[in-house]
Amino acid sequence: MLGNSFGRIFRVTTCGESYGKGKGSGLAVIVDGVPPGLKLTREIVQQELDKRRPGVGKLNSPRKETDQCEIFAGLGQDGLTTGAPVGIIIYNVDTQPIHIEQYRSYKDIFRPGHATYPFFLKYGEAQDWCGAGRASGRETVARVAGGAVAKFILAREGIEILAYTVECLGIKARPLSFEEAKRNYRKNEINCPDLDAAKKMEKAVLKVKEEGDTAGGIIQVVAHNVPPALGEPVFDKLSATIAHALCSIGAVKGIEFGAGFQVGRMKGSENNDQPYLDEQGRVRFRTNNAGGLLGGMSTGEDIVVRLAIKPTPTISIQQRSINMRTMKEETLSPITRRDPTLLGRIYVVAEAMMAIALLDALYLARAYDSLARLDKKWLKLKGL
Amino acid sequence: MLGNSFGRIFRVTTCGESYGKGKGSGLAVIVDGVPPGLKLTREIVQQELDKRRPGVGKLNSPRKETDQCEIFAGLGQDGLTTGAPVGIIIYNVDTQPIHIEQYRSYKDIFRPGHATYPFFLKYGEAQDWCGAGRASGRETVARVAGGAVAKFILAREGIEILAYTVECLGIKARPLSFEEAKRNYRKNEINCPDLDAAKKMEKAVLKVKEEGDTAGGIIQVVAHNVPPALGEPVFDKLSATIAHALCSIGAVKGIEFGAGFQVGRMKGSENNDQPYLDEQGRVRFRTNNAGGLLGGMSTGEDIVVRLAIKPTPTISIQQRSINMRTMKEETLSPITRRDPTLLGRIYVVAEAMMAIALLDALYLARAYDSLARLDKKWLKLKGL
Amino acid sequence: MLGNSFGRIFRVTTCGESYGKGKGSGLAVIVDGVPPGLKLTREIVQQELDKRRPGVGKLNSPRKETDQCEIFAGLGQDGLTTGAPVGIIIYNVDTQPIHIEQYRSYKDIFRPGHATYPFFLKYGEAQDWCGAGRASGRETVARVAGGAVAKFILAREGIEILAYTVECLGIKARPLSFEEAKRNYRKNEINCPDLDAAKKMEKAVLKVKEEGDTAGGIIQVVAHNVPPALGEPVFDKLSATIAHALCSIGAVKGIEFGAGFQVGRMKGSENNDQPYLDEQGRVRFRTNNAGGLLGGMSTGEDIVVRLAIKPTPTISIQQRSINMRTMKEETLSPITRRDPTLLGRIYVVAEAMMAIALLDALYLARAYDSLARLDKKWLKLKGL
Amino acid sequence: MLGNSFGRIFRVTTCGESYGKGKGSGLAVIVDGVPPGLKLTREIVQQELDKRRPGVGKLNSPRKETDQCEIFAGLGQDGLTTGAPVGIIIYNVDTQPIHIEQYRSYKDIFRPGHATYPFFLKYGEAQDWCGAGRASGRETVARVAGGAVAKFILAREGIEILAYTVECLGIKARPLSFEEAKRNYRKNEINCPDLDAAKKMEKAVLKVKEEGDTAGGIIQVVAHNVPPALGEPVFDKLSATIAHALCSIGAVKGIEFGAGFQVGRMKGSENNDQPYLDEQGRVRFRTNNAGGLLGGMSTGEDIVVRLAIKPTPTISIQQRSINMRTMKEETLSPITRRDPTLLGRIYVVAEAMMAIALLDALYLARAYDSLARLDKKWLKLKGL
Repeated sequence: MLGNSFGRIFRVTTCGESYGKGKGSGLAVIVDGVPPGLKLTREIVQQELDKRRPGVGKLNSPRKETDQCEIFAGLGQDGLTTGAPVGIIIYNVDTQPIHIEQYRSYKDIFRPGHATYPFFLKYGEAQDWCGAGRASGRETVARVAGGAVAKFILAREGIEILAYTVECLGIKARPLSFEEAKRNYRKNEINCPDLDAAKKMEKAVLKVKEEGDTAGGIIQVVAHNVPPALGEPVFDKLSATIAHALCSIGAVKGIEFGAGFQVGRMKGSENNDQPYLDEQGRVRFRTNNAGGLLGGMSTGEDIVVRLAIKPTPTISIQQRSINMRTMKEETLSPITRRDPTLLGRIYVVAEAMMAIALLDALYLARAYDSLARLDKKWLKLKGL
Repeated sequence: MLGNSFGRIFRVTTCGESYGKGKGSGLAVIVDGVPPGLKLTREIVQQELDKRRPGVGKLNSPRKETDQCEIFAGLGQDGLTTGAPVGIIIYNVDTQPIHIEQYRSYKDIFRPGHATYPFFLKYGEAQDWCGAGRASGRETVARVAGGAVAKFILAREGIEILAYTVECLGIKARPLSFEEAKRNYRKNEINCPDLDAAKKMEKAVLKVKEEGDTAGGIIQVVAHNVPPALGEPVFDKLSATIAHALCSIGAVKGIEFGAGFQVGRMKGSENNDQPYLDEQGRVRFRTNNAGGLLGGMSTGEDIVVRLAIKPTPTISIQQRSINMRTMKEETLSPITRRDPTLLGRIYVVAEAMMAIALLDALYLARAYDSLARLDKKWLKLKGL
Repeated sequence: MLGNSFGRIFRVTTCGESYGKGKGSGLAVIVDGVPPGLKLTREIVQQELDKRRPGVGKLNSPRKETDQCEIFAGLGQDGLTTGAPVGIIIYNVDTQPIHIEQYRSYKDIFRPGHATYPFFLKYGEAQDWCGAGRASGRETVARVAGGAVAKFILAREGIEILAYTVECLGIKARPLSFEEAKRNYRKNEINCPDLDAAKKMEKAVLKVKEEGDTAGGIIQVVAHNVPPALGEPVFDKLSATIAHALCSIGAVKGIEFGAGFQVGRMKGSENNDQPYLDEQGRVRFRTNNAGGLLGGMSTGEDIVVRLAIKPTPTISIQQRSINMRTMKEETLSPITRRDPTLLGRIYVVAEAMMAIALLDALYLARAYDSLARLDKKWLKLKGL
Repeated sequence: MLGNSFGRIFRVTTCGESYGKGKGSGLAVIVDGVPPGLKLTREIVQQELDKRRPGVGKLNSPRKETDQCEIFAGLGQDGLTTGAPVGIIIYNVDTQPIHIEQYRSYKDIFRPGHATYPFFLKYGEAQDWCGAGRASGRETVARVAGGAVAKFILAREGIEILAYTVECLGIKARPLSFEEAKRNYRKNEINCPDLDAAKKMEKAVLKVKEEGDTAGGIIQVVAHNVPPALGEPVFDKLSATIAHALCSIGAVKGIEFGAGFQVGRMKGSENNDQPYLDEQGRVRFRTNNAGGLLGGMSTGEDIVVRLAIKPTPTISIQQRSINMRTMKEETLSPITRRDPTLLGRIYVVAEAMMAIALLDALYLARAYDSLARLDKKWLKLKGL
């Protein structure tokens, strides 16, 4: 396996799986590019991990993963970051033999909608059949831990990130301002800040759950107060980096920025956001069809991204499939441990990846700025 | 400016702008990772460049860019690639003083929908006001040249890539198989292989053009005969790499894979593609909601991607804007040289970036395979 | 701090310091690019760690670091690698308050020969004063753990790596073949396989130690049975990658390949190694002035590298220095916990970094080979 | 071939060979990370290229390469850099059929000391036999062009780089201060600023030349006025990056920093440089055994590096070799077009690579600084 790192300057590198065999097995992240002197505590990281914890509520998997983290590297004697890479580990606890035996029972059968097939082709019989290994959603625990560090650093720069459900099973939330969404953030299990829509969504998901089925949806990720001019104009547009970061989350089947696929139905005169000068002389826009991104670079407006989240592929309904060992078709029995929808948990992974991508872009932009020696007028517009 | 390279093993690096000042100015690409012994000719590259050439037909910009390329590096005495990086240059020809003066007339005015604002913040007054520099669509000429090399190498591996319009101004093409789409590829200016829909689209675009306005749309990119198990399971999923590659094209405001945003309205039992064994014993799928990607890795089914393309931001309608030098609001007069829609040209850029991303992933997958020493059974399924 | 990863395809990422504050503090490495199905055990890694363990013998630091490792990620239920990144952690045990207080006593004083000054400039007062943090030799524990994995994989490919002392305090070892050196590897504390020279070196070091001083030296690193044609012809020559890898070890002040600096005194006719065909029809060389590297690429001959190792900078002799907090000159008292020479321990770090660099280059070369489709004649010469 | 780029933020990517087949063949470099608003002219680049031009004087190859460069990208209408990547091309002129036929006559014969063998294994019969392709010293023309841009940017930051010969055929230059070396820089063909030693060296080289042989030597590269704290503490030490950069130059067989291999014979008390405070309150060192690098990071003292340069492998003396097509041993006739020593030309390539490595490290350090928010005291010491 390759590619367990993300980021060019601020970089997270992760490893681990739910049912690692080694003593003290767990998931870990090494976070490179942490500034010195920060009061980073395990509680700050834990708070983010708790958001994605399953085993809470009726919309989530009954698996128990307490996901307690320890910061084992990067802090000095006074508890502040030293500038050294931060190492965070989350030990596995839910590795009961009974679950391992369950996984063993269908370990050679390709689970529709899962990564089983490419995993067999890449890793052969040694592939991690127990809990899906690195293809499991649990891999994202380490992303969230790394993202917690990124968020913490971004917060010091005044940047906030929020993700929430905007659509599920055909039910759409009404448009909400950043402040409204923030006010009702995580007020319900499906994490939809339109509280009326949330109720309908939850009801619909429960109905689907009773059928043994699962539900997809759409989440929105908003980055607020991002300084303008992050991102590079060609291959490393901020939009491209964000797309890379967010499409690397399993279950994401699409991403759109601002008006997104609606631009396919729009005219230029409708789509172009008109700029104006606000009272402080800052450039602002009357609309935000661009989703805070022009030429792939930030404009200072909210970066607004939507992600298509597929329904959990594990279902309690019998499916036709293939036994990869015998290479014969076979029936896969219903599987019961799963989330009826990923919406109530995946948003925090999206926030984490957005934070990592933004912080990395911020470092790159500042690197370039450092030698560009621009007129102060431009620095001021960038908030520097 | 940073980030003018794309790819980890197969890598393209580009430079150049329409109105470069240096003698013999032009756009260039250096292509790293080219196998030796290939009969790569300038005609092969030129063929792709010709597809995006403007100044042809009524849906395109009246600018004349003949875009003739030369391969100035990487070929041996017998005209075959030597393995050395291939250097391709496309000299500028349309640099008439009259156009430069036109650009100069509004060089300080932020053009709505354009990258002007972040460019000023990043590069100050030295930013390339003439023809938009690296933020111009013309930057993509070098991508297309690099992509032509990638396509040529992929073709030797049996992999084909095709992009075409599927929606414009509310008019949708009917679903088409790869073969149907290929048959009607580039049969009309808007490059929609549903010939009936194409006529309606072209008519609608012309109407919008007459209003001085522009039109967005949706294009579909399909990669055919991609070997399974390309892409890495975590941060470098093939889907993530493709998203990075394609969202780095200006004007792309969204990307979706397979069923894409429709998964937000689906149940797991609807979305999961059921696998079966074909007559040759290969794993195939009864549907392709996954768009050829499971766990972010290729499955051997067609990789199907759709891109939201925004309307050309340059319009012949007066707009309110800001003079960046005086930092005062100002009116931007109508601009006439532009494409009424990007659909008839951007598809070839999408093909190029898809080709580059796939070839890079192919190299990475083969690197890992080389030491994995799997059972021959798995190699056979991968077509090795 | 940036740059805690090494490698492009096979990549190690490390973190940790001796006196980390977090619970369960330690050093860790995440190893990306591990093939599946390998019987990698903690004992294989431990064996390498034991080589660099201090607190053994009179030439080493009296610090006690048992350096016990755990593989916490990357192994499947049957104890084989799954292909997932391997995570290894080495918990700190020698974090007695008494040592911390010792470090605190001179925490603001720049220790000559140490990284204190740039650390203050980069990380300010938050820099890790306790045990030198990431600038401590103990950082290399994680490299050795990652290198152990690399060595294990290389061994399966038939590649062996050996490092040993060839010079110390003016005493030189006689030239030894790979087999001879291997036979007497680690037969003495200073790890010099010329046993007579070793005795003299050890005696000389002990004398220097009694003076409260320390000794530098030269170690040789040999990679045996490396397939020809690893390394890339331009910026990523194998020699350049090895130089990067080995010069990233603190205390290394120079590297030379084959005849090394002697080439500065040679003529072309003396330096050129004459090729011939051995009985198996393989290309071999009558001499190895090139150190197994032509055009920066491997030739199949032993890769022979020598490293200049500076004397341990910590000495038991009073030194003039600067208090970085008060920015006044000050006297630094003698410090007693240290290695009188690094030669008896640093060799295993050199082996680790050589292994990582070679495995990474092997992956890259195989990636390129996979699409190059050369005549079998050339594959056979490469041993494929 | 892979790896034709160097640098992480400031990055050069090169291509080209002496006898490229395409129309308008040449060598090119794309330089990424150029600040905007710089008065970069082709003369600035040409000046550096002229330094390495052969066909001048009796110590150099009789080949005529005028090496005229054009900046074809990255400049705006007013001739200033726009921030866009700078593209520079150097067209080939010395591609007379007669030379091509000479190369053809021994194209299958492995030239001792050359990269022929690994090139055949990597690229097969398609490898570039004409003028050695990318393994030719001429590849460095593009590095010098890229390095010229780096030097120009560094000069604005007050950083100077100088390389010169310090040893040849056993004749050593006396130690010289930076100012002395600068005064006598390029005063003679062998570029040795100790003018007496230079005369002896040139005489010795001419004698060797008459024998049909060639000479190696040692050059010193000095970077002056480098701000302290460049380089990262672990894998990306400045020393490691510089080693990578400089060992990527063909003919370099070793690199040492400061006292270099002498440290192998030194005691800690001799090697440690004692710090003191100068009148401005800056930290300085009484000696510079460290070569301006502590913990792999810059200290503000001159960075002093020495490189072992092998004798030109092409000699006018008959050698035994192998025909790679027939795989039989064969005699290689004397070859006459060559430099009797590389010392008079390679120094400018070393300066270029040092400049690129330093500028890249400067960007990285500034990136980190930008979020580190240190006390002004530390910024002041860094000259910020």
